[in-house]
Amino acid sequence: MRARTATVKCNVNLTITVDGYSAGTDQTEDRPFGHDGGDGTGDRLHAWMFDTPEENRAEIEELAAPSAFIMGRNMFGPVRGDWDRPWNGWWGDDPPFHGPVFVLTHHAREPQPMRGGTTYHFVTDGIESALAQAREAAEGGDVGVLGGATTANQYLAAGLVDELRLHIVPFTLGAGTRLFDGVPPLRLEQLTSRAATGVTHVTYRVLP
Amino acid sequence: MRARTATVKCNVNLTITVDGYSAGTDQTEDRPFGHDGGDGTGDRLHAWMFDTPEENRAEIEELAAPSAFIMGRNMFGPVRGDWDRPWNGWWGDDPPFHGPVFVLTHHAREPQPMRGGTTYHFVTDGIESALAQAREAAEGGDVGVLGGATTANQYLAAGLVDELRLHIVPFTLGAGTRLFDGVPPLRLEQLTSRAATGVTHVTYRVLP
Ligand SMILES: NC(=O)c1ccc[n+]([C@@H]2O[C@H](COP(=O)([O-])OP(=O)(O)OC[C@H]3O[C@@H](n4cnc5c(N)ncnc54)[C@H](OP(=O)(O)O)[C@@H]3O)[C@@H](O)[C@H]2O)c1
Ligand SMILES: NC(=O)c1ccc[n+]([C@@H]2O[C@H](COP(=O)([O-])OP(=O)(O)OC[C@H]3O[C@@H](n4cnc5c(N)ncnc54)[C@H](OP(=O)(O)O)[C@@H]3O)[C@@H](O)[C@H]2O)c1
Repeated sequence: MRARTATVKCNVNLTITVDGYSAGTDQTEDRPFGHDGGDGTGDRLHAWMFDTPEENRAEIEELAAPSAFIMGRNMFGPVRGDWDRPWNGWWGDDPPFHGPVFVLTHHAREPQPMRGGTTYHFVTDGIESALAQAREAAEGGDVGVLGGATTANQYLAAGLVDELRLHIVPFTLGAGTRLFDGVPPLRLEQLTSRAATGVTHVTYRVLP
Repeated sequence: MRARTATVKCNVNLTITVDGYSAGTDQTEDRPFGHDGGDGTGDRLHAWMFDTPEENRAEIEELAAPSAFIMGRNMFGPVRGDWDRPWNGWWGDDPPFHGPVFVLTHHAREPQPMRGGTTYHFVTDGIESALAQAREAAEGGDVGVLGGATTANQYLAAGLVDELRLHIVPFTLGAGTRLFDGVPPLRLEQLTSRAATGVTHVTYRVLP
């Protein structure tokens, strides 16, 4: 794996409740975020994106700014076990990534090209491999770890994250998948912190 | 208990790590905050108060602004079980409260007057009684629940908190006493959010 440098970063970018959850329990196809305090579509978690996009333009653009992406299979979709039915992500034919997306999974699958430059690659040999592949594909650009918490926590625990971009929203869930769960203590540096309506955006540098 | 009104508030005011801890494990007399990621005195949790007081003057003043205070016995001190040795709090002869402080405990004890207007009252009949007594003593002023998390969580779970003032600091602990632990889901309204060096101050209204 390439050395981490100031110019090529691995960023985690997540919306969390003030008690640290990025999704509720019991994810299904009808309820992609599980019991998320809203209708299961992440409507309350992501109200800041959908209700007030102008106010949060910079943070929304930052989400899509990396040149390659990593996500867990549960963020990718509701299929569990074998790939026993067609599933190409929640984001339609022309997903908002416009670049390579490395999906961590225990279930091998051929790469899935989409429109607009997105290709889903399925990685079965672990987080370091996914990051190495994403760095290679990013060709000098940043790598964005988009979630869910299970995936973000593995990268944090392994010391592979440069920056943590959190969007802290005003409710608690008390159950679900939680950022930092099982992650050893981290030293962080608060780089930026900005309030918008119903959300606080905080960026941390992860210190060695 | 009196009805909650906009003018008389019960506020929780806590410094938490970004993973929600307000203290580490294994509190002792030498280590009032337990394994807190620093020297056990809360030095890292409260760096924002001690290292940069000017920048955080408003939040520091707010901490002391209520007319009466509530705290748990573990915030008050390291004595457990019977009051088998003299202990009058961590804050010396002239504590910074300058008003009545209601200490929740299972171990009855006579009120302990201090200099400067602080009196410690020991409440053995539960959180509602402590709040009723604090409201009475506050004579129309606010009541501040100062912690620890065990105490704050009981007030949150019982729906007795009007505002939650959090000071979110840039590290994680992974173990200790955690705000929101065991508290049913809360709906909050972000009232204010302000960044200072190494801390984000967020105030939430707790919605019914
Ligand atoms: N709030 C936000 O910003 C945000 C962001 C992203 C996602 N979400 C939500 O979070 C939820 C998903 O998050 P999650 O934490 O449950 O799961 P996740 O991290 O998205 O996916 C976990 C799954 O990915 C696979 N996986 C992860 N690490 C692996 C490894 N090292 N090797 C092989 N496979 C690996 C495993 O699936 P298999 O064993 O089945 O292959 C595992 O069960 C969804 O509800 C999603 O909508 C929220
Ligand atoms: N970060 C911050 O802003 C902040 C603020 C405050 C405190 N702290 C730290 O947090 C730690 C203490 O917090 P904590 O969560 O461990 O404990 P705590 O809430 O301060 O105290 C818990 C203790 O108070 C008594 N108590 C609580 N509720 C009661 C009830 N309903 N009825 C009767 N007794 C009751 C019990 O003691 P007994 O059974 O022994 O009587 C209980 O063990 C300390 O390390 C302190 O320094 C940090």
